[in-house]
Amino acid sequence: MRQIESAVKKLQTKEMREVAKSEGCSVTEIMSGIASGTAVILKNTSRPVVPGFRTVGVGKGLSIKVNANIGTSPLNCDLSEEKRKLDIAIRCGTDAIMDLSTGGDIDAIRKSVMKKSVVPVGTVPIYGLICSLNRRGKKFVEATATEMLEEIEKHLDSGVDFVTIHCGLTYKALEILKKKKRLVGIVSRGGSFLAEWMSKNKKENPLYENYDTIVKLCGKYDAVISLGDGLRPGCIHDNTDAAQIQELKTLGLLHKYALKHYVQTMIEGPGHVPINNIRKNIELEKKYCKGAPFYVLGPLTTDIAPGYDHITGAIGGALAGYYGADFLCYVTPAEHLSLPDAKDVENGVIASKIAAHSADIARGRKTSLKRDYDISRGRKEFNWKKQRQISINPLEFDKRFSAKPKDVCSMCGEFCAMKRKI
Amino acid sequence: MRQIESAVKKLQTKEMREVAKSEGCSVTEIMSGIASGTAVILKNTSRPVVPGFRTVGVGKGLSIKVNANIGTSPLNCDLSEEKRKLDIAIRCGTDAIMDLSTGGDIDAIRKSVMKKSVVPVGTVPIYGLICSLNRRGKKFVEATATEMLEEIEKHLDSGVDFVTIHCGLTYKALEILKKKKRLVGIVSRGGSFLAEWMSKNKKENPLYENYDTIVKLCGKYDAVISLGDGLRPGCIHDNTDAAQIQELKTLGLLHKYALKHYVQTMIEGPGHVPINNIRKNIELEKKYCKGAPFYVLGPLTTDIAPGYDHITGAIGGALAGYYGADFLCYVTPAEHLSLPDAKDVENGVIASKIAAHSADIARGRKTSLKRDYDISRGRKEFNWKKQRQISINPLEFDKRFSAKPKDVCSMCGEFCAMKRKI
Repeated sequence: MRQIESAVKKLQTKEMREVAKSEGCSVTEIMSGIASGTAVILKNTSRPVVPGFRTVGVGKGLSIKVNANIGTSPLNCDLSEEKRKLDIAIRCGTDAIMDLSTGGDIDAIRKSVMKKSVVPVGTVPIYGLICSLNRRGKKFVEATATEMLEEIEKHLDSGVDFVTIHCGLTYKALEILKKKKRLVGIVSRGGSFLAEWMSKNKKENPLYENYDTIVKLCGKYDAVISLGDGLRPGCIHDNTDAAQIQELKTLGLLHKYALKHYVQTMIEGPGHVPINNIRKNIELEKKYCKGAPFYVLGPLTTDIAPGYDHITGAIGGALAGYYGADFLCYVTPAEHLSLPDAKDVENGVIASKIAAHSADIARGRKTSLKRDYDISRGRKEFNWKKQRQISINPLEFDKRFSAKPKDVCSMCGEFCAMKRKI
Repeated sequence: MRQIESAVKKLQTKEMREVAKSEGCSVTEIMSGIASGTAVILKNTSRPVVPGFRTVGVGKGLSIKVNANIGTSPLNCDLSEEKRKLDIAIRCGTDAIMDLSTGGDIDAIRKSVMKKSVVPVGTVPIYGLICSLNRRGKKFVEATATEMLEEIEKHLDSGVDFVTIHCGLTYKALEILKKKKRLVGIVSRGGSFLAEWMSKNKKENPLYENYDTIVKLCGKYDAVISLGDGLRPGCIHDNTDAAQIQELKTLGLLHKYALKHYVQTMIEGPGHVPINNIRKNIELEKKYCKGAPFYVLGPLTTDIAPGYDHITGAIGGALAGYYGADFLCYVTPAEHLSLPDAKDVENGVIASKIAAHSADIARGRKTSLKRDYDISRGRKEFNWKKQRQISINPLEFDKRFSAKPKDVCSMCGEFCAMKRKI
């Protein structure tokens, strides 16, 4: 029986108990979130068994989660490097991984990530189809709906826990987009390929038209549909525009349909949003999508910081989380410039974890607040070992900590404020 | 005639015109801000002439400014390294520098920074006294009020544009602090030495008692008093507590007194503040201090990220700026662990500039928004040269940009969303 069906029938599942335990809340709370569609559990029933695998819940009342994207590109394809990125992302505390590979043997890469990852894995199945068509000298605009559905099933069958599918990019939304000129148009890769398909073939989005089949497929594996925002804004100028909101409304309807059919969904969100519009974006999602978990990319609070978009993303993500976003997709310092390397993955995950944690404590989450209390107590006691252990990245702590005498750091030396007798 | 006196008498000064020009607003606006004490101009009338020196205004209606702290410590003292930090901070766009040296020949270091910096320079004069007493084998608790005032005058006389003076740490506030136990007590270096002085000597803060003299001294040079927050919270647990607010109220009275005597002041603020309390902190400052410019340190939105406090500071600073903070003191990745090196200074300034800019665009600042528009236009046009030029740190852009063919980046290669025909 699927998670939603069990929850509706008030039957506890093993996964609900695992999530309740890791979140420090009751199983009833988890169950009620799952039943109402405000929370999801990321676990494909056919996923390969990985020792130490963590069952992760995302949604209302749960701690804010972080996702790290890894994956090859046509210009940058090295499986061992991707495995290294996976290890680092997990060491830094990511709660999920998306394998967005578009270079090399994508099926093999995905399977190898699935076997190795102790956290849930997501993919964007359409990327696989784009690449396999490309290898056969064909373009995505020639793809059939059947091919798209087959690719989705292939991913689900390999055990992927959540799949991004851009079902909300309708012909109507595309018309709005074309009428109201954007500065940078579509920046979602999946969204742009589908829009090109729709424009060229003058047909509705096949993923929208076949949504009932997609829901059935995902239901079969109890995988979570991550309803992609193909029309998310790609710059501050385009933020929160009519096309984005039209798509969001559609995503709300799609969420409702899936919930009725006992299939879990989350909603993907922007992107580039200035600080003054972040709250509005969260509130609109919660309104149109009836409180479905919101999975945001950043958001980035300015466009001017290539090389530092983990920071613009941390600013936006912290604020989004505070206002109710549930799941933060990291952005790395490489964004807008190149494929991230392992160090970028590390910096991206840490920045997003800082954002998630800052939002968790702002939302009054007790176990999160205790961590701040404990590290500050360690600071007062000059207990560097304790501080190191609690700190967000103990390895970075080691690299920087350069105390000469055992009881002061090199910042103020003997002039340390904490050593004064007051 | 001092800036405030001129402003009250509606007489334009050269400095007001310079600030109006760089801010893209009218001189009348600047004048009105100065007259009401909601804006200040950081320029000592006796400062050494530095070719290319930028007159900087801070306050209501102006772009948000960033300060970078540099300076030696007893354990880390190398003048050439400090000069390198100064150069890097200025290259990265800092709007002011504070020389917080506590190691080596402090007077010589300050003079050399003054001669080199094209942006305003601030200091914490009390540090100089602490060090010179220390060299003579004496403790700060033995210092006299006269010695403190002499040190302040020495700094002003060497041309320092703003001085942090902890005049608001009163006996009453200290009593509150002692009664309501904090987790980490006082973390302001200046504040902790003064509190120790007061506790040991059982006397009121001499900088509070001699505030009229300090106002006269600063007036003589038209230097800005940065009213220090010796009781700023040093961890999330202690944020926005009674001692902090008591001091803030005192700072408001001190601001009012100085304004009446035509002396410019700003108010220093925290520190460690969770996202949910940042707005309140700004609103309280604006209320108790009648809209005086607010100069915040971070604030850091969590305690758990030593090694990454430029990021926690960027989250807090962006939000503080959005709610009305005027001046962001950077925090570097070295905070809580060691003295920052040149690379840390670079990362600290950039993170704070991102925060300030994100807040400026959220506040609707047109010239700031244009920069986002322009870089995104460059992105759409695959104009990498333009993007590089507008980006927050072109040197970092160069390091990361690894486009192979001239019209795509290595992130998506041929699968770039912007290359689809829609």
